[in-house]
Amino acid sequence: MNKTPCVALLTDFGLADTYVGTMKGVILSLCPSVQLIDLTHTVESQNVRQGAYLLMTAFRYFPADAVFLVVVDPGVGTDRKPIAVETDHGWYVAPNNGVLSYVLAQVQVRQAVVLQNPAYQLPRISQTFHGRDIFSPAAAHLANGVPIAQLGPIWSDLTLLSTPILEAGPGQIRGEVLHVDHFGNIVTSIGLWNWIGDNRLRLDPQFGPGPVLPDLDAAACQIRIGQQTITSIHTTYGSVPPDTLTALIGSSGQLEISVNQGNAARDLGVSPGDPILVTFTP
Amino acid sequence: MNKTPCVALLTDFGLADTYVGTMKGVILSLCPSVQLIDLTHTVESQNVRQGAYLLMTAFRYFPADAVFLVVVDPGVGTDRKPIAVETDHGWYVAPNNGVLSYVLAQVQVRQAVVLQNPAYQLPRISQTFHGRDIFSPAAAHLANGVPIAQLGPIWSDLTLLSTPILEAGPGQIRGEVLHVDHFGNIVTSIGLWNWIGDNRLRLDPQFGPGPVLPDLDAAACQIRIGQQTITSIHTTYGSVPPDTLTALIGSSGQLEISVNQGNAARDLGVSPGDPILVTFTP
Amino acid sequence: MNKTPCVALLTDFGLADTYVGTMKGVILSLCPSVQLIDLTHTVESQNVRQGAYLLMTAFRYFPADAVFLVVVDPGVGTDRKPIAVETDHGWYVAPNNGVLSYVLAQVQVRQAVVLQNPAYQLPRISQTFHGRDIFSPAAAHLANGVPIAQLGPIWSDLTLLSTPILEAGPGQIRGEVLHVDHFGNIVTSIGLWNWIGDNRLRLDPQFGPGPVLPDLDAAACQIRIGQQTITSIHTTYGSVPPDTLTALIGSSGQLEISVNQGNAARDLGVSPGDPILVTFTP
Repeated sequence: MNKTPCVALLTDFGLADTYVGTMKGVILSLCPSVQLIDLTHTVESQNVRQGAYLLMTAFRYFPADAVFLVVVDPGVGTDRKPIAVETDHGWYVAPNNGVLSYVLAQVQVRQAVVLQNPAYQLPRISQTFHGRDIFSPAAAHLANGVPIAQLGPIWSDLTLLSTPILEAGPGQIRGEVLHVDHFGNIVTSIGLWNWIGDNRLRLDPQFGPGPVLPDLDAAACQIRIGQQTITSIHTTYGSVPPDTLTALIGSSGQLEISVNQGNAARDLGVSPGDPILVTFTP
Repeated sequence: MNKTPCVALLTDFGLADTYVGTMKGVILSLCPSVQLIDLTHTVESQNVRQGAYLLMTAFRYFPADAVFLVVVDPGVGTDRKPIAVETDHGWYVAPNNGVLSYVLAQVQVRQAVVLQNPAYQLPRISQTFHGRDIFSPAAAHLANGVPIAQLGPIWSDLTLLSTPILEAGPGQIRGEVLHVDHFGNIVTSIGLWNWIGDNRLRLDPQFGPGPVLPDLDAAACQIRIGQQTITSIHTTYGSVPPDTLTALIGSSGQLEISVNQGNAARDLGVSPGDPILVTFTP
Repeated sequence: MNKTPCVALLTDFGLADTYVGTMKGVILSLCPSVQLIDLTHTVESQNVRQGAYLLMTAFRYFPADAVFLVVVDPGVGTDRKPIAVETDHGWYVAPNNGVLSYVLAQVQVRQAVVLQNPAYQLPRISQTFHGRDIFSPAAAHLANGVPIAQLGPIWSDLTLLSTPILEAGPGQIRGEVLHVDHFGNIVTSIGLWNWIGDNRLRLDPQFGPGPVLPDLDAAACQIRIGQQTITSIHTTYGSVPPDTLTALIGSSGQLEISVNQGNAARDLGVSPGDPILVTFTP
């Protein structure tokens, strides 16, 4: 058993029901000393892409032996497979619907299995709450140190979402809005430089907190997003007067659009999937 | 002391204040190694019946020695009694206002007491926050293994809410909406088969995850709810096309109305207490 | 190392992103057995005064060796200092922007430092998420028992917010609304009797749960708030009929305006900063 097992949970279950609490009860019953950490439970209902993005923003900051329990599962009860994946940074328990895509682009997969072994499930499996009946017991057993291969047969067909839009051409970069955060900050795909053709992101060695967009940072450039043009990049929200639009490098190393003490996404009327274009002045 | 004491919390305190955090501070101060689990804190303000329902959905999935701290307490400071109840599945600390009803219908009560012993309360008792001053210390002491009888004198007059509507007649079953979940799924009383006259629910031996409505599952039947008629029951949300209304057996074994990738309660305009009628075709 | 280290978190990060979960990952990585407690994460965006108030309501109920991680930080990345403060009741890690004011008025400060030592920060520091990169590691190291002086040089210029309005004159007391809680209860400054000129609150020895406004409690008085006049004070929410306005002494010892089973702030249209006047009838 791990000395300090940790299970981090990310779902779209919301906070008004006891779905999350019930999953924790199941985990606790199997692994009493576990550290249970909420990543978020307010992923938009059944928005697999948003879940995938949010998981990516957090996983690196957890211990490498953490277990991530990720349940955004519009296909619960259908033939999508429940899986577990062992990587060089974390174990992941989730439906095989792409919700792990953005993490899988950044880690080395060691082994993946389908969660089929009834010895590691609840005695009765509902058709509508695999989070409780299949995923939570799997996460608890992994936290207890059970080898992943015991949970079921090997699975090699990991579902991956399409790569976020990020195209660099002469004098310009095209990207898309990945996320709008609680403050209305607009997080874009620009900065995920090394996302390559096979849907894997090779991390810039410089990835991590701090700027990874040195060209943008220094050069004169124009940023088009919504109906606005932004002409400069600052280093932090408070570098411009209140209510002023600015671009900056966010905490995950990507280009972010923000209004100091305001709400950029509301002001610009943009949401995930909307385009952003950066043009460099020669 | 329990080796791995667990206190699960359910309140209507919301998440915007520090009421829940303060209760946890009190518990931690008395029981430093406790596992604190949130069931939910967004029960509708002072909606005792909703709290009772939500507690019922979760308690079975916790260890049998878990302590449940349940504070939905419109009568705080009045003469309603603060109580603790020991059962064959969990200890419960709550106001005696019916919020434990649905659990009490499913467990065997061993002992109940009024929380009157000042040695197990905070030194000063406010008139408006017994969650902090009376209930949290009681939960912490129970988690520490203090015998329930030390907390106060025996109490036998447990307040029970009226039984949910569930009437089976020739060719039909009448029930009511018990809950609308985060996804807009409508959970009904149909499936709580063995709720009997004295407000106790004798559990179907088959209770647990999985269908317990075999007749409905197989037979041709009509379901009337809101202004809609539903004519078939599927096994899972994704068994019908997106935006399609379906009935299914939910994760607690009750009849549930759902819209695949949509919001059934909003579409049908129903809320807890509304009637549902199932008619069997001969 | 503390035997049972506890870090209590209060932020304005909301629950929809992974900001809070990420901070917890950082803390866990450094202090695996920590108890992580959420005070609240829904402080209004960048509302330092609200954060200061909410922290004050909770801190006394935690163990005296708890670490409080407080991130309401509109100036992140600017020249406001990240600090840690050791007191006779808790360690506090926060930006030096006044968010600790209301606690600092009630405790004895032993030592304060600027968080400058890179050995106790993440390897790379972003400009926009010091909660993750600076504050969380500092909290974890303090929880581990690292002496505060190791985190950076001594800092003596603690930023304090202006004192809440509370003026007693012949036959009247003027105060202000400090907070509106989840239930719509209006918490006022009246009751913070001993807030003195240098922005320090000397606590009434009687402070704690229970009434500390004996004069109000007994005397005939009029309370003006919003467009309403309230003429009596009761002891608890349920002492008046449903939907009736009443004044009472809240759980932190301050004058509170409430509607039994209703929402006083909505009915009266008041919000933090609005005036309240208590007039005593001779």
